[in-house]
Amino acid sequence: MNPTGLVTALDMLATFSFALVASKIAGLKGLDYGGIALVAAVASLAGGTLRNLFTGDRPPWLLNPWLLFAVLVAVMFTIWQRKAKEVGRFVLGLDTFGLAVATVSSANFAVGTGVGIVGSVILGLIGGVTGGLLRDVLCQVEPVLLHRETIGTACLTGAILYVGLDRLNVAEPISAVISGLMVILVREVSIKFDWHLPKME
Amino acid sequence: MNPTGLVTALDMLATFSFALVASKIAGLKGLDYGGIALVAAVASLAGGTLRNLFTGDRPPWLLNPWLLFAVLVAVMFTIWQRKAKEVGRFVLGLDTFGLAVATVSSANFAVGTGVGIVGSVILGLIGGVTGGLLRDVLCQVEPVLLHRETIGTACLTGAILYVGLDRLNVAEPISAVISGLMVILVREVSIKFDWHLPKME
Amino acid sequence: MNPTGLVTALDMLATFSFALVASKIAGLKGLDYGGIALVAAVASLAGGTLRNLFTGDRPPWLLNPWLLFAVLVAVMFTIWQRKAKEVGRFVLGLDTFGLAVATVSSANFAVGTGVGIVGSVILGLIGGVTGGLLRDVLCQVEPVLLHRETIGTACLTGAILYVGLDRLNVAEPISAVISGLMVILVREVSIKFDWHLPKME
Repeated sequence: MNPTGLVTALDMLATFSFALVASKIAGLKGLDYGGIALVAAVASLAGGTLRNLFTGDRPPWLLNPWLLFAVLVAVMFTIWQRKAKEVGRFVLGLDTFGLAVATVSSANFAVGTGVGIVGSVILGLIGGVTGGLLRDVLCQVEPVLLHRETIGTACLTGAILYVGLDRLNVAEPISAVISGLMVILVREVSIKFDWHLPKME
Repeated sequence: MNPTGLVTALDMLATFSFALVASKIAGLKGLDYGGIALVAAVASLAGGTLRNLFTGDRPPWLLNPWLLFAVLVAVMFTIWQRKAKEVGRFVLGLDTFGLAVATVSSANFAVGTGVGIVGSVILGLIGGVTGGLLRDVLCQVEPVLLHRETIGTACLTGAILYVGLDRLNVAEPISAVISGLMVILVREVSIKFDWHLPKME
Repeated sequence: MNPTGLVTALDMLATFSFALVASKIAGLKGLDYGGIALVAAVASLAGGTLRNLFTGDRPPWLLNPWLLFAVLVAVMFTIWQRKAKEVGRFVLGLDTFGLAVATVSSANFAVGTGVGIVGSVILGLIGGVTGGLLRDVLCQVEPVLLHRETIGTACLTGAILYVGLDRLNVAEPISAVISGLMVILVREVSIKFDWHLPKME
């Protein structure tokens, strides 16, 4: 009924999750507090920023400054914990959760902007994967998060499902939950069975 | 007569060429199918995306989803070939062709947006070189394509020529062909005679 | 009284300073003339470009092509000096000056776009730090400029001060000078006393 309200709530959730994961990884890499805040902000806000710029809107954090507050809380929580610990199962789960929410949020945002089916799927994918990509570039990590390469597949599947359900006029909250669970399912299954995308010979 | 039509056709051509070159290079670097698709999409779409964002438009692939289809075909063709082979003369020629078309397409687009002579030249340059730059950053290659450093000179020359001919009211298709050939000429000559831009001592 | 006039003048100053610092560093790293021009343009124009895109405007160098002329003069001056020398106290001072001017210019621009207090502070910060970050990524340097990590703190302090003074209806030129001096002060003091932001244990 109120897409903006749903997008705002989901953006808050995804932003907090991504900021928490990113500040953990940045702290582990030995960055100072400023660097941790920078990486957390870029990782958690870049996907939504691109999504909005591509459709002609201001970035979400200019429309809703509470997103910046969510990043700040995540960074302060990480710093307050002091010890930089290994990235464990909990952080990995949080990353998957953030991916699911960000993908759904972006696909939900996109279908309301008149960019068509294909454009909506791609904006959902961009909203899901951009932050994590930039985080890993900025921190110069690769193997910290398992199966980075299946993240794209997971987000793409979820975005296609959301946009498809939307076209079938399924109620927004139901589409959101189903496609979010699909993102989580694809990622968890690919980790559990150690599935990888093939390479060229 | 119809700049949008010309830009669309040229964007399709340049996108397909750049996507083919980029997926070859990404495959050669051992990226999986998802990575190949990502690099191909960024390399072939980033220049036009920046060009459009800078003038206040949505990215070309949101206005015309067939561009994404062109990327997909290029990626599938590369994967279908299986063996990752060395970048040969053909791929190098394809890259030069893509540069010429992308520069002309972007300069043609720019002169219709009221950004002035200097702005149009720079947008033509950005449309030509951005994708290749990002491709090489993402793949962390440098020496695969010969004379990357003369690419900027080639695109700049072509963009200046196009904008100049446009000011002289030369018919659009003629300006496009002449300045496209100029891009190819500058690049081919600089490769043949091994010309380089100077460095500081 | 005329924010656009002030922003334009400050953007020219900051652009020239940043372009001079960046072309020095790029020359020192052995880049050719094209690479030097690219790094100088990105370093000096990226902050204002992001700031404008985020608020829905075209980049400053499309609105005012003289900014590109400022970059060109800085690059030609650097090349004309021939010898690539070490980054000395003068270049470091120029970088700090550029930071102060860019932060004030961006905060001044931001308060006129209706993005609110928090948004204005963040846009001031982005306008100040983005160019230097990208310059160091492109040149792959880290230790050339002292205390890169306090640059963020300096710009943030200055941006908060500018936006605060603006809310208190202090005259624009006075706010600009005071907050610009604050950026310089924070950076100089942190260099002098070797202050660093803390890291996690």
